[in-house]
Amino acid sequence: MFESAELGHKTEKAEYEAAVPPLRAQLLDAQFDLLDLKQFAVVVLINGVDGAGKGETVNLLNEWMDPRHIETWAFDAPSSEEAERPFMWRFWRALPPKGKIGVLFGNWYSEPIHARVNKISKRAELDQQVDAINRFEAMLVHEGVLLIKLWFHLSKEGQKARLKALEKNPNTRWRVTERDWRYAKLYDRYRETAEHLLRHTSTGDAPWLIVDGSDERFRSLLVGRTLLDALRKRIDAVQKGWTPRQTAAPLPPVVDNRNLLNSLVLKQDMGKKEYGELLEKYQGRLALLRRSDAFRKHSLILVFEGADAAGKGGAIRRITAALDARVFRIVPIAAPTEEERAQPYLWRFWRHLPGQGKVTIFDRSWYGRVLVERVEGYCSEADWMRAYAEINDFEDQLIDAGAVVVKFWLAISADEQLARFKEREAEPHKRFKITAEDWRNREKADQYAQAVCDMVDRTSTENAPWTLVEADNKYYARIKILRTLCERLEEALG
Amino acid sequence: MFESAELGHKTEKAEYEAAVPPLRAQLLDAQFDLLDLKQFAVVVLINGVDGAGKGETVNLLNEWMDPRHIETWAFDAPSSEEAERPFMWRFWRALPPKGKIGVLFGNWYSEPIHARVNKISKRAELDQQVDAINRFEAMLVHEGVLLIKLWFHLSKEGQKARLKALEKNPNTRWRVTERDWRYAKLYDRYRETAEHLLRHTSTGDAPWLIVDGSDERFRSLLVGRTLLDALRKRIDAVQKGWTPRQTAAPLPPVVDNRNLLNSLVLKQDMGKKEYGELLEKYQGRLALLRRSDAFRKHSLILVFEGADAAGKGGAIRRITAALDARVFRIVPIAAPTEEERAQPYLWRFWRHLPGQGKVTIFDRSWYGRVLVERVEGYCSEADWMRAYAEINDFEDQLIDAGAVVVKFWLAISADEQLARFKEREAEPHKRFKITAEDWRNREKADQYAQAVCDMVDRTSTENAPWTLVEADNKYYARIKILRTLCERLEEALG
Repeated sequence: MFESAELGHKTEKAEYEAAVPPLRAQLLDAQFDLLDLKQFAVVVLINGVDGAGKGETVNLLNEWMDPRHIETWAFDAPSSEEAERPFMWRFWRALPPKGKIGVLFGNWYSEPIHARVNKISKRAELDQQVDAINRFEAMLVHEGVLLIKLWFHLSKEGQKARLKALEKNPNTRWRVTERDWRYAKLYDRYRETAEHLLRHTSTGDAPWLIVDGSDERFRSLLVGRTLLDALRKRIDAVQKGWTPRQTAAPLPPVVDNRNLLNSLVLKQDMGKKEYGELLEKYQGRLALLRRSDAFRKHSLILVFEGADAAGKGGAIRRITAALDARVFRIVPIAAPTEEERAQPYLWRFWRHLPGQGKVTIFDRSWYGRVLVERVEGYCSEADWMRAYAEINDFEDQLIDAGAVVVKFWLAISADEQLARFKEREAEPHKRFKITAEDWRNREKADQYAQAVCDMVDRTSTENAPWTLVEADNKYYARIKILRTLCERLEEALG
Repeated sequence: MFESAELGHKTEKAEYEAAVPPLRAQLLDAQFDLLDLKQFAVVVLINGVDGAGKGETVNLLNEWMDPRHIETWAFDAPSSEEAERPFMWRFWRALPPKGKIGVLFGNWYSEPIHARVNKISKRAELDQQVDAINRFEAMLVHEGVLLIKLWFHLSKEGQKARLKALEKNPNTRWRVTERDWRYAKLYDRYRETAEHLLRHTSTGDAPWLIVDGSDERFRSLLVGRTLLDALRKRIDAVQKGWTPRQTAAPLPPVVDNRNLLNSLVLKQDMGKKEYGELLEKYQGRLALLRRSDAFRKHSLILVFEGADAAGKGGAIRRITAALDARVFRIVPIAAPTEEERAQPYLWRFWRHLPGQGKVTIFDRSWYGRVLVERVEGYCSEADWMRAYAEINDFEDQLIDAGAVVVKFWLAISADEQLARFKEREAEPHKRFKITAEDWRNREKADQYAQAVCDMVDRTSTENAPWTLVEADNKYYARIKILRTLCERLEEALG
């Protein structure tokens, strides 16, 4: 894997000096085309052995291009806010918006390598991390991010010589730390781990480029030209109407008329008196659970989906009534903002993840991708087809970080919905105004039903199952939701 | 001050039960009008003695209104990200966007009271904090924020009785902490401090409302009606075209033709050779300063302002060439995003403040308020007139938190600007395309000059002075900038 990078590539000074001016001009041009187009973001990963010129190369790119539109991130120890959330949260925070270049040092590869080299993790864990990385990067690529992965390499002798040379020079001595020498001693182990990692994360969509770091001029030209080629190729393609390559596996055909939704008995019995008693009971249980010591190391993420007028808002209010306003946040999901549209679709949900001891309630959620966006054609079939796996991945990460994820689909019959629409139209409070869109959505009820069934089939997991709520009777629905929530919390908090 | 709140107000159950349903409906209506209008944000401050029903009241407001559009914040110990930035940063993060209600517990009043009650701060310090709070709140009010300040009060005996009652009830026992009892012992001191603070922060624009917390029904109705009245009054006013009350003090008249800008000798001498030597010298000095141990407890904030084509970008690149890309971020200031427009104008700058050991370079900045926004009429005269003091305040906070703030105005002559425009137009790289706006701005050169002179007069402070840079000769300008930066850093790092 590193053979070619150990050949001792070299660029002569004259050649370098002739090559740089046109390369800079072309890079700047490409950067400004990127900015003008605002159609995709560029993420450059910088990894590899110490002393191989990672920092120098990035500084050079900042000199060659317009540094105002390059965002360079280095990740040291996580902040307290980052430590309370899933591992990938800090990287989501650092993703550049469309039109910009993000350069990420010490990215999602650092921790897996570090843990393995220092024998903190086992090979099997590394392989799990590799899988997670591949899924994450595939998502980025599918979302249109131009992902460039650079691995800076030096041979064992090369690294030793380079660190010594840096130490000798009073101007560069500061750059060699004890940690660098400690890592240099682990070179063989590091190399072996890296080779394994690189081989398994070098995918067709996002291959690694191994950069021979031994000659400054060579590596600078190599990186500059790699970036230029990738930028230019993508810009040309976008200008010709390119979109991320998409393939969609077909959904299973519908053979009979029986599905998850039409198997539900939507009208359930519950009177006002019984409701009042059960409401008090479960709200009390929920309040105690939230205040329990065990919850301090967890967070709670609730997802509410359902047809219009299914009673999401009312159910949410019965939950928040049992919570302290200081610990919960409700995130109503409507059209994304301008800043959200410049990012992969899951970004707007990542930004709202709760810290420990907190509750976030999503009133509609990332499932919009496989519901409204699918039915209304706001994204391509391939986009929503891949979303099932991406969403499962997302929720796995939440759960791994200690979140309890509880998801509700509120199902009502067409008749009950109609009655509620009419009731709302008659009400003076304009907040219950029914829009033309709500009426239109009713006409697509079959398509929505199919989307819901597919969603549940594909995203109801052991850790984050869907609860289908028969919601024609509001009392019944609210109690089922509160009871389910209490049970899920009790189970999770042990 | 607390006399009225100790009268023993009470609301009978029947009266309460009759009053609540219409109040809820009206609050909901007002909340949705607020959301529809999206013209202003509401900030509700919740302060006062423990046991007086702060939490209960906020929870009730969340029940009465739509909790999806209320953002409740409680501020405990700052996160590591917050601790590295000015005290107010965490509150800027929590400001609700236009259309929403933000409820802030433990806000900017908590720390000053805590410090004074526990004798950590002196009275003089408290008074400084009072001044800072008044300036901050005046800014919010001028930016159109509806600010409602609620102080929950209990008499000494009332508090003791209340805490005992809460402790007795197994359902509420958890709510009484040791800290509450510790504070109860300090009641007299707390009351005295609060009285002083309330008297001096109860301004015409943002008065305190003292809420007698002893009777739950009374305080609930009082808070609900206060909020409703304030909301309704503001909504009605906005619908009639209201904007924040504005008064502008006149600027001093211009008597002679001599000003800061036309007193500069814009064409300074410096040849390429001298430039090359000095560039290397100052870049080296800058690199060392940034790497020094002393800098780890500081941050560096650079502001670049100047006419079009004055050479800001080139100067910035000469600075970043001396820095590691991992520590700096350049923030180019263009039109605000949708999320930024929903906030006070300084919000977009607060969000980019660097942590310790980091550098943020603003390519154009908050001074746009008193430059382009003034000249082009994007804000009212009163808006930009008050901005001088608000900006000084902002920079004081940055400096208090350890930031070194260095501000450059790059001045070029009309002839030199014209030459650069023509040169840029002739260049093939479209990034240097001159827009029609740039030509228009030239015609307003006198107005811009006046705005610059006023800006320097009013915002060049001892801690954050402006450096006017004679920029007809790019070499000279870049060296002056680098030298100034090194000197300011040396001075600050001691």
